[in-house]
Amino acid sequence: MSDLPARVHIVEAGPREGFQIEKGPIATDDKLRFIEALAETGLEEVEFASFVNPKKVPSMADSEEIARRIRRKAGVLYTGIWLNERGLERAVASGVDLKGRLSCSASEVFSLKNAGADFVEELKRQRAYVPRYLELGLGDCWLSVMTAFGCNYQGDIPASRVVEVVRRSRENVEALGARIVGVTLADTVGYATPLAIERVIGRVREAWPELGLKLHLHDTRGTGIANAYAGLRLGVDRFDSSCGGLGGCPFASHKGASGNISTEDLVFMCEEMGIATGIDLEALIGCARLAEEIVGHPVPGKVMRGGTLAKLRARAA
Amino acid sequence: MSDLPARVHIVEAGPREGFQIEKGPIATDDKLRFIEALAETGLEEVEFASFVNPKKVPSMADSEEIARRIRRKAGVLYTGIWLNERGLERAVASGVDLKGRLSCSASEVFSLKNAGADFVEELKRQRAYVPRYLELGLGDCWLSVMTAFGCNYQGDIPASRVVEVVRRSRENVEALGARIVGVTLADTVGYATPLAIERVIGRVREAWPELGLKLHLHDTRGTGIANAYAGLRLGVDRFDSSCGGLGGCPFASHKGASGNISTEDLVFMCEEMGIATGIDLEALIGCARLAEEIVGHPVPGKVMRGGTLAKLRARAA
Repeated sequence: MSDLPARVHIVEAGPREGFQIEKGPIATDDKLRFIEALAETGLEEVEFASFVNPKKVPSMADSEEIARRIRRKAGVLYTGIWLNERGLERAVASGVDLKGRLSCSASEVFSLKNAGADFVEELKRQRAYVPRYLELGLGDCWLSVMTAFGCNYQGDIPASRVVEVVRRSRENVEALGARIVGVTLADTVGYATPLAIERVIGRVREAWPELGLKLHLHDTRGTGIANAYAGLRLGVDRFDSSCGGLGGCPFASHKGASGNISTEDLVFMCEEMGIATGIDLEALIGCARLAEEIVGHPVPGKVMRGGTLAKLRARAA
Repeated sequence: MSDLPARVHIVEAGPREGFQIEKGPIATDDKLRFIEALAETGLEEVEFASFVNPKKVPSMADSEEIARRIRRKAGVLYTGIWLNERGLERAVASGVDLKGRLSCSASEVFSLKNAGADFVEELKRQRAYVPRYLELGLGDCWLSVMTAFGCNYQGDIPASRVVEVVRRSRENVEALGARIVGVTLADTVGYATPLAIERVIGRVREAWPELGLKLHLHDTRGTGIANAYAGLRLGVDRFDSSCGGLGGCPFASHKGASGNISTEDLVFMCEEMGIATGIDLEALIGCARLAEEIVGHPVPGKVMRGGTLAKLRARAA
């Protein structure tokens, strides 16, 4: 009936994608406190840095300082993103843990509006990274496909389009000696339903059964955790999520924004279904409370309020 | 792979279960405004009344007044609950739309704490309704099984226990000439995951393939809509839900309480997956905004903030 994985791997994106969208400035010390607390929960990767133009995204201007100051916990990856070669060089210099990152958008209109690039230009940008990735030993890349389920400009995105952008991206970098070993399907603007997840994953799997798959889900319309469940049923074992559901709070004034699925809600569902996460849920709830304190407004996570079942079970037993 | 229904039937429980838990008094006129707006959305049933002791639940003391004053829309059921024969007689006198209602709890400890009844006493209470139900033409009853997935006092509830309470309830009322034609499985305190939904529904289906099934889900720990999806996959076509996710707001001071799944989030997911609801989602979002205005604090619904996709699609096309 279903192919639930035995274990999932979660990339905590709250300190990057979550804090990035906050209106008020967040103190570097608070970010460090949050990142270090997250690393204590058993999370394998904390994405905190964004090596983008600090004039355009001032909230991420302290990425290098954070990279320098983090007290690193062994076994945890501290990662970040970049949008061009200059950003990549900043990442390299900063000492963050590096990954071969490539991206494109399934919606060309989104890409033009978001990154000023049509698909041909996106392919060109992918190629520009490859020589340096190969030098850095990052030739096995993951491709992020943004707006893989729909786009506010183009509407629904057919699964065949996702397959096409993956195929062309693979050919694009393989010609230069790199490989795409995994794909992150991002529901960038919250279009996905469980059926859409099944449809797109089905098509990608059919084309490349060996390809790694990760889901990057936003809970814009309440289907985020259901979409994660649809992915789990198909054996997807990698997810991005944000502690507390950071990343745009429906109760704050971030019009149109909406958070990633909440890490602790995802961990709760997985663990309750017998899927190991390696994460201490109580410790993670502590982080969600810290996140709320730091951003100064309620965040949408549920388990942080409902509590875990462990204590109730212990009392019942 | 899955057995998604073509059409679902939703009981809107916000005006009853949602308002019941609010701390501040809610004006009868506001309740009427909300109920009448809900009836305009295409909802088939609005549960608003609770014929319980007004001294114990003062917020529901105006159930008769509301029943009298509602401007009824043809084709909509206006319903309520009762917990004893006296409540049933109040319901009969009030003119609400009646259903043959029976209940029990899968957790005996919950039942003792919640209703002062062990299971044997619950069976006795079921029997007490039957003669009057038969007189009223309500001999085809639905059974609500509370704490069908877990209980804060007893912990996890095995699926076999749910089957047992259904079996004994069926035998109990069939001996008196009534029938149980459907069962509402209630995740009263938010224990369920999609796997638990599958497990319990599987067992109940196996025992009585012809029995109607409804899910009553709370989103205490973020799995509510995923649980609904798990039910839909198994062909469940009846749900209780609350407009706006009323019924305990995580951002208010209702400690431990948590709302039903949000009606508009459920409708969004269903309609996006091609499952008809008969409900005008934009109108329902209007009701969720009205609910928020009436209770005076944020409610947890997501689609009411994220918006529908219809406008985005229209713009894209």
